[in-house]
Amino acid sequence: MATTRAGRSRSRGPYAKSSEKRRIIIDAAHEVFSQRGYRAASLKNISDQAGISETSLFHYFPTKQDLLVAVLDHRDQIGVRAQPDADGCVDLYSELEQQATWNEDIPGVVQLYSVLVSEATTEDHPGRQYFTKRFTELRQRYAREFALLQEQGRLRPGTDPDMLAASLVALWDGIQVQWLHEPESVDVPATLKSFLDMAIVPDSSAQ
Amino acid sequence: MATTRAGRSRSRGPYAKSSEKRRIIIDAAHEVFSQRGYRAASLKNISDQAGISETSLFHYFPTKQDLLVAVLDHRDQIGVRAQPDADGCVDLYSELEQQATWNEDIPGVVQLYSVLVSEATTEDHPGRQYFTKRFTELRQRYAREFALLQEQGRLRPGTDPDMLAASLVALWDGIQVQWLHEPESVDVPATLKSFLDMAIVPDSSAQ
Repeated sequence: MATTRAGRSRSRGPYAKSSEKRRIIIDAAHEVFSQRGYRAASLKNISDQAGISETSLFHYFPTKQDLLVAVLDHRDQIGVRAQPDADGCVDLYSELEQQATWNEDIPGVVQLYSVLVSEATTEDHPGRQYFTKRFTELRQRYAREFALLQEQGRLRPGTDPDMLAASLVALWDGIQVQWLHEPESVDVPATLKSFLDMAIVPDSSAQ
Repeated sequence: MATTRAGRSRSRGPYAKSSEKRRIIIDAAHEVFSQRGYRAASLKNISDQAGISETSLFHYFPTKQDLLVAVLDHRDQIGVRAQPDADGCVDLYSELEQQATWNEDIPGVVQLYSVLVSEATTEDHPGRQYFTKRFTELRQRYAREFALLQEQGRLRPGTDPDMLAASLVALWDGIQVQWLHEPESVDVPATLKSFLDMAIVPDSSAQ
């Protein structure tokens, strides 16, 4: 802990401490939600995991849902994201496969995302803004990729980049829920690949 | 109410009464969930809507989730389902459009379906069996339709009926969640149609 000679936290001290504690709590919540799911996890589980008091936890995150939103934000940062090439294109196939395979190891996080994204459709839900923003950003991101493919003549005729982007996000969200129900009989990466195979014409120059 | 001359319910009397009361409660729950969503609805709201006591409600449905599952079962029965033609085929385009358009009028029911299907992925959830069964039946049903189209040479080469069926269910679930978040910018029927357009080759004999 950073302290001054007088033994009191000053300048960046309190902020750094606060930021560090938030991070410890988020890591603990991530762990607990991943292992127990959203419903079964309690704030007591999370404060125990973080090694702090419940009072201290309440100070940083007044409700379980505030914690979930923080975990989701954190999840976005730790996810896999492919780097664009010189043309500004990412390889959608490899990005989706990497992220979907990554998600297979964190069913608890996928589950809490799935629960929240639906709960958050109610008007007063604390997660509403997060998901509306997330949908907008994801759709824009994929629409851009599909539009670039269209410019290269690689999008199936009759398809629309915006529609494909919304559909890809929807398909992914939906197939993850089926996978949570029946992990042994649903293959998320293969499902996403089959969608791209329908939307994208093979790159003849690469053959 | 059916009673005997002695004024007491006998034979089908008590059963009919019980069945009728269940139906009244389910209709009330359907109404309340549709208008208020799942989180905001209380058992008190529902017993008030049904015109019965909360004690009586508890007798039929001990928890709010039991009620939700009953409402979902009921929803399956009142949905739109196209009749198969002489070959056992349904027109997927018109069936999906009808059902998706129907759903637009009941956002509360779509919302509670969406919340429950995710919550139910936890092991001990009372709705788990319902959704696992529903997914299996829906996938089988659509896989059969896609297989029939494949036999007629109307499925896009390289696609697989089982994969298309799981994808269609996933896409529908996922796009409904986006629609609940942003009803003004998401078109569920058009999204489903665009998926079918990618999967199905136009019927040349009909042109």
